[in-house]
Amino acid sequence: MYRVNEDYLKLPGSYLFSTIGKKSRAFKEAHPEADVISLGIGDVTQPLVPAIIKALHEAVDDMSRAETFHGYSPDLGYSWLRETIAKNDYADRGCSISPDEIFISDGAKCDSGNIQELFAADSRIAVCDPVYPVYVDSNVMAGRTGSYDPETGCWSDVIYMPCTEENGFVADLPKERPDLIYLCFPNNPTGVAIKKDQLQKWVDYALENGCVIIYDAAYEAYISEEDVPHSIYECAGAKECAIEIRSFSKNAGFTGVRLGYTVVPKALKCGGASLRDMWARRHGTKYNGAPYMIQRAGEACYTEEGRASIRGLVDYYMENAATIYDGLKGMGYTVYGGVNSPYIWLKTTGGMTSWEFFDYLLKNAGVVGTPGSGFGPNGEGFFRLTAFGTHENTQAALKRIAAL
Amino acid sequence: MYRVNEDYLKLPGSYLFSTIGKKSRAFKEAHPEADVISLGIGDVTQPLVPAIIKALHEAVDDMSRAETFHGYSPDLGYSWLRETIAKNDYADRGCSISPDEIFISDGAKCDSGNIQELFAADSRIAVCDPVYPVYVDSNVMAGRTGSYDPETGCWSDVIYMPCTEENGFVADLPKERPDLIYLCFPNNPTGVAIKKDQLQKWVDYALENGCVIIYDAAYEAYISEEDVPHSIYECAGAKECAIEIRSFSKNAGFTGVRLGYTVVPKALKCGGASLRDMWARRHGTKYNGAPYMIQRAGEACYTEEGRASIRGLVDYYMENAATIYDGLKGMGYTVYGGVNSPYIWLKTTGGMTSWEFFDYLLKNAGVVGTPGSGFGPNGEGFFRLTAFGTHENTQAALKRIAAL
Repeated sequence: MYRVNEDYLKLPGSYLFSTIGKKSRAFKEAHPEADVISLGIGDVTQPLVPAIIKALHEAVDDMSRAETFHGYSPDLGYSWLRETIAKNDYADRGCSISPDEIFISDGAKCDSGNIQELFAADSRIAVCDPVYPVYVDSNVMAGRTGSYDPETGCWSDVIYMPCTEENGFVADLPKERPDLIYLCFPNNPTGVAIKKDQLQKWVDYALENGCVIIYDAAYEAYISEEDVPHSIYECAGAKECAIEIRSFSKNAGFTGVRLGYTVVPKALKCGGASLRDMWARRHGTKYNGAPYMIQRAGEACYTEEGRASIRGLVDYYMENAATIYDGLKGMGYTVYGGVNSPYIWLKTTGGMTSWEFFDYLLKNAGVVGTPGSGFGPNGEGFFRLTAFGTHENTQAALKRIAAL
Repeated sequence: MYRVNEDYLKLPGSYLFSTIGKKSRAFKEAHPEADVISLGIGDVTQPLVPAIIKALHEAVDDMSRAETFHGYSPDLGYSWLRETIAKNDYADRGCSISPDEIFISDGAKCDSGNIQELFAADSRIAVCDPVYPVYVDSNVMAGRTGSYDPETGCWSDVIYMPCTEENGFVADLPKERPDLIYLCFPNNPTGVAIKKDQLQKWVDYALENGCVIIYDAAYEAYISEEDVPHSIYECAGAKECAIEIRSFSKNAGFTGVRLGYTVVPKALKCGGASLRDMWARRHGTKYNGAPYMIQRAGEACYTEEGRASIRGLVDYYMENAATIYDGLKGMGYTVYGGVNSPYIWLKTTGGMTSWEFFDYLLKNAGVVGTPGSGFGPNGEGFFRLTAFGTHENTQAALKRIAAL
């Protein structure tokens, strides 16, 4: 009899956002009259901007004519998109990243989940706690995390790096040496950013200790402060130790469009093995490229018109962030994030656990958020709200919370 | 120092179609005057049909308005698409597959490569030889295949099931018991189909021996004969032992659009573990859904107009298949496939190896095909041509081959 991958079965419960979706749907079914506002999953609400819509229509027309039809895309993505990214996201910021170090994909989530495949089965991983669940879950599925302790919510073989009020939600360097370090800044879920000198310390640590940093910069567009790096490659030596993952979901609103990219520098080598070549091999073997139409939409993000409109989108959501941050603060909540990020991280009140606060807010205010403990043990007692709603919904949600 | 996944480094050379692409580009650069015709990689050439173009434009417009904008799609895909598939591809053929056993993805290649994750690390895999390289390569990357013998082109721990002229390119049941059996019918690369009573024997074998069949039915639309099953679920008991992978690439021309789906029946259980639930967990954790616009394009494939146009596309390519098959036969080549499949499988001449024949055809006729040995040791001495060119190119290629 065949046997299954037992590591999959170790995962407790279901994927965090699937659980939230199920709970919300159950509440709506039980209370069809309730007008539930979701500030939970980090999904955008504003439509695609006109420059992107135009590019999509044109690309659809391309697909309707034999002369301009596009079949399989190149393994790494179209060169016109990779060159545009290399220039705009890197060269213009003083980082030298070549187009053949950029891999276009259907989004940061797949890349975040798949990147661990490049590393040895017994690699030790270190994650910030709390953090986006995909890093740990994908390593659980790959058998790297040991056993789960339901009491502590921790895996025996994962190095957790607490992000707490005390350290300003920027983890201290780990005490044990990991092989892989997952960092996400601006952070999901705390909304806190890392300063350039702080990030340089992580790069230096990785170089000294032979670690690879997986740097998730999905929220880069929300950075508003000067000394916050937009890319890890702004730090000296990062090309020798870091992989960077980027998304079009949160800046251009591509959550339902699906586009992202990952940078694996050629300088990233382990003995004779080039991680860039290994990732290229994975793209060639297990992936078939992002759709032509959607790569064209990605390209449109970098035109003058596209950039201006996307800036407008980000500003729109950041107004919500201010609404939530200032509103909650005014009510006496302890709040973090929201300055370089679309996430607000608040402390639950009345000694409630994160899930108790979730149920309390859903039941009494009809507002869905995300329980902090879903992001790791140190998220317990916190709660995440997102700025991705409409102005109207965000203001309405705040009013309801104020009335509690 | 961190270490990489050494299994990746075992892969000889690069992914087959990447190598062919590189060789073709090198030839074109050296001979800019040459008008190279590609009948190599199975990429389509005809534009998307009007019903799909219309659906795409409408979906783009949906994304331009807040009221109809779509963010993250449901983990398994939109229910309207899964319900349409359940009805048209299964219920209408007498197979009872429920929409929540259908998982929408960005294509059959990803699913073919990722499905092995559900199984134990030491699972034994059996593949037809020759076969689409993704099945073996993805298992190499997962460490299941042992060591590679460059002499024989074989992996020590893979069970190869020869598909030869003697057995009509339908493999005999394996002598050793595998855990996973990859079957692809109509077959890539041989173009040969399997009859229903033959496939039933495989299902019976899997049930008796505790195996799972991964059934790749990407070429189902090309079936023209009556007694050839379109789905493995036409066989009794298949829901207890088989996963089926489907593609929109080859029927609707979605190679650059990216859409596919995989069926994991609820009846497929190993002890207490439901493979359907495990695949759902993978979708939830490492994937973020196919784009809304492209799921709408998939839906349009099933409308009356969409079906008629797609039938026209398939007929167009099958005319090419007949052109190639009859043309080569007339020249004295030994040829197979082409009846229930867009692939023609021919024997090389003059004692040439597959790669020698590739170079010979490229150099002397400016025609790119795929060397049979790229699909496995038993592909040596064979060569694959695809029917996915235009009529004009296909006829021109045949004329050039005739003139050799």
